[in-house]
Amino acid sequence: MDEQAYYFEDYQLGDTRTTGGKTITEADIVIHAGQTGDFFPHHVDADWCEKHDFGQRIAHGTLTFSVGVGLTASFINPVAFSYGYDHLRFVKPVYIGDTIHTVVTISDKKDHKKHADKGIVTEHLEIINQKGETVMVADHLLMCQKRDA
Amino acid sequence: MDEQAYYFEDYQLGDTRTTGGKTITEADIVIHAGQTGDFFPHHVDADWCEKHDFGQRIAHGTLTFSVGVGLTASFINPVAFSYGYDHLRFVKPVYIGDTIHTVVTISDKKDHKKHADKGIVTEHLEIINQKGETVMVADHLLMCQKRDA
Amino acid sequence: MDEQAYYFEDYQLGDTRTTGGKTITEADIVIHAGQTGDFFPHHVDADWCEKHDFGQRIAHGTLTFSVGVGLTASFINPVAFSYGYDHLRFVKPVYIGDTIHTVVTISDKKDHKKHADKGIVTEHLEIINQKGETVMVADHLLMCQKRDA
Amino acid sequence: MDEQAYYFEDYQLGDTRTTGGKTITEADIVIHAGQTGDFFPHHVDADWCEKHDFGQRIAHGTLTFSVGVGLTASFINPVAFSYGYDHLRFVKPVYIGDTIHTVVTISDKKDHKKHADKGIVTEHLEIINQKGETVMVADHLLMCQKRDA
Amino acid sequence: MDEQAYYFEDYQLGDTRTTGGKTITEADIVIHAGQTGDFFPHHVDADWCEKHDFGQRIAHGTLTFSVGVGLTASFINPVAFSYGYDHLRFVKPVYIGDTIHTVVTISDKKDHKKHADKGIVTEHLEIINQKGETVMVADHLLMCQKRDA
Amino acid sequence: MDEQAYYFEDYQLGDTRTTGGKTITEADIVIHAGQTGDFFPHHVDADWCEKHDFGQRIAHGTLTFSVGVGLTASFINPVAFSYGYDHLRFVKPVYIGDTIHTVVTISDKKDHKKHADKGIVTEHLEIINQKGETVMVADHLLMCQKRDA
Repeated sequence: MDEQAYYFEDYQLGDTRTTGGKTITEADIVIHAGQTGDFFPHHVDADWCEKHDFGQRIAHGTLTFSVGVGLTASFINPVAFSYGYDHLRFVKPVYIGDTIHTVVTISDKKDHKKHADKGIVTEHLEIINQKGETVMVADHLLMCQKRDA
Repeated sequence: MDEQAYYFEDYQLGDTRTTGGKTITEADIVIHAGQTGDFFPHHVDADWCEKHDFGQRIAHGTLTFSVGVGLTASFINPVAFSYGYDHLRFVKPVYIGDTIHTVVTISDKKDHKKHADKGIVTEHLEIINQKGETVMVADHLLMCQKRDA
Repeated sequence: MDEQAYYFEDYQLGDTRTTGGKTITEADIVIHAGQTGDFFPHHVDADWCEKHDFGQRIAHGTLTFSVGVGLTASFINPVAFSYGYDHLRFVKPVYIGDTIHTVVTISDKKDHKKHADKGIVTEHLEIINQKGETVMVADHLLMCQKRDA
Repeated sequence: MDEQAYYFEDYQLGDTRTTGGKTITEADIVIHAGQTGDFFPHHVDADWCEKHDFGQRIAHGTLTFSVGVGLTASFINPVAFSYGYDHLRFVKPVYIGDTIHTVVTISDKKDHKKHADKGIVTEHLEIINQKGETVMVADHLLMCQKRDA
Repeated sequence: MDEQAYYFEDYQLGDTRTTGGKTITEADIVIHAGQTGDFFPHHVDADWCEKHDFGQRIAHGTLTFSVGVGLTASFINPVAFSYGYDHLRFVKPVYIGDTIHTVVTISDKKDHKKHADKGIVTEHLEIINQKGETVMVADHLLMCQKRDA
Repeated sequence: MDEQAYYFEDYQLGDTRTTGGKTITEADIVIHAGQTGDFFPHHVDADWCEKHDFGQRIAHGTLTFSVGVGLTASFINPVAFSYGYDHLRFVKPVYIGDTIHTVVTISDKKDHKKHADKGIVTEHLEIINQKGETVMVADHLLMCQKRDA
């Protein structure tokens, strides 16, 4: 995995990148249920789902989020670190066999209130399925060093 | 898994519940890297970690979040659904062998702006390690039906 | 996970509880084969199965048993412990896509022969598929403390 | 995997075979908890275990059973099928890092009550750890065709 | 797992053995992508595959190789060890649901150039799908002790 | 995952790239044994290993190979495809906790014998542990289109 210093000044508002895609398989849901202990029938009980509105098993929100975020892991930036997410919203269900990818847009930049040598960069994530529908959004918060600080 | 209708009125500000715990093992990190494709060296390269500040592998933020949320999956509430998270923050790293649990507190309730028969309940999640340190926080947003609506 | 002391006297003959369901997926069989090393073609070779009577892959007996028992894990009883199973029987095959749940019935209670402060409770397990057919049965033996001992 | 017809008459009382061994790793317990949904703290919460009598995480009984049985899967016998287990007993806990193997002894043979062309063979399984201690026993029931039937 | 000394002299040119089969499932590909970090869309992105020539996801070459070789693991030979492979070729794609097995043929034997007490045995592996098509070949190199050395 | 056309002419003899690293964990070996069915005691039986020369469990050769190759999966080259490996050699054992990375060197280029518009590029892979020791080598064969063909 490549390492590349990418400073606060290097992020440009409106810059965008698109990740590769990953199909959310039944196996992914089984493994995620196992990892989290979330055995809600919405995810692990096909029979129960058939008898309810959505009709079929859906991916855990945390699975869609984890994969959608994981797809953005491309290079190591030693002068930034992730400190959180805001406004994470489940927009549409993800079904077995759906393929998701993530579009990352630099949506905000601001100085850090206390540390003059740092800034906050917001990456807006849209997780999108194979039909072009947005299934989840979130704002990723990066604390970045300033180049000339 | 039990099903129990829990309406907007049933959630009381300040109510709290504590989940069981789960140890974040090396296997969990390996499986999560595999599920998400996030092979950042912070998670999968012990040698690289030794040569950097934090000294050892740390759990993916999405892993801590997924497990911390999964631990809260206890009963099915047919009159509520999860629609997102706000203010998710990584407070402290989670290392291999740390045991986390989650404390859920009802921190906010408000009417839905458009739908008189619904309200928004905020569950504040604190994910806490075996030393009693908070490692992650997030606000979980539940859309709930009102009982008398 | 909640902890609740449930004594010998608290178990009532005929009491019954029904667990949530879980679909036995192809992924479950793959993972179980991997965990146990049981690569019998009945479980891992779809081509071989097509050429034999049952026509398709079936779940390992130990998988059905493990999941059927796992579904009953609901609360911690600090005054009882599991010491075994009797009369475990494979009644019908479980195919990929079948959804199983477990019905637990208190079928027997008796004093412990040597320890006056303990008793043996038998939980009869019926593992049932989405058609209502019993696919496996077993008698679970619990050693329980007596309340007034 | 080899196929070999092994008839009722071919099983000799007292015949014994010893399987290879497998170390029960932390990963095995994590995967088994995930497969079964059994997140009892005895298996997944190292911190809780430290504060209780046994001091450390132990393997699920169903894990020890599944691996102990899986290790016996060596050749396909087209003239026999497994129909259950009796007298499954958890004799000692299995800890992370313990290595188990299984000793199979033909302990009983009897005619089938209704079908003259079949018999029941009992394989007594002893699952043994690296110290030579028996950790689990069970009687495996095989329905076998008679050769001359 | 049985242990059996099989010396250089015991391998006969032209000897052949056929392993059991294993179906390559979607879960296998998901797990292999996770284990290796190889998230090429050929393996994990069903939508991308539909838009390209081969039309559907294919197994990683390393997965087919690993399973094809794993199927040959039958008994422990304490007087031989594997030191490599030559001429590994991907002949045909393996799709989800294909069942593969391996045919092993002793294709070469020669003395070790430096060690008079050892020889090199070549096992030619053909990995074959359910249609009888060879999907991969490789030459496995075994360093074997001579019996009378 | 980025897509970038990289033609025969673009590969320069002696060009080299170094991948990120991955620690081979106990979990990786457990998962690989499960995926391949290779339960040789060298990989899954810590007790057996202690009683033999190498003293501890070692990674499957196919695991080291799969991870070492997987680490090289960085961008999609639509004008090349992998068709095999030559001279794969297991140079040193990989133990639990070792961290491997891969160095890829363009070691050979030649015209395709039959197709004037194609050439064969050889990538020499060295898989190296955290001590700088080469643990495995292999020559990867790429069939590449020529730019001006």
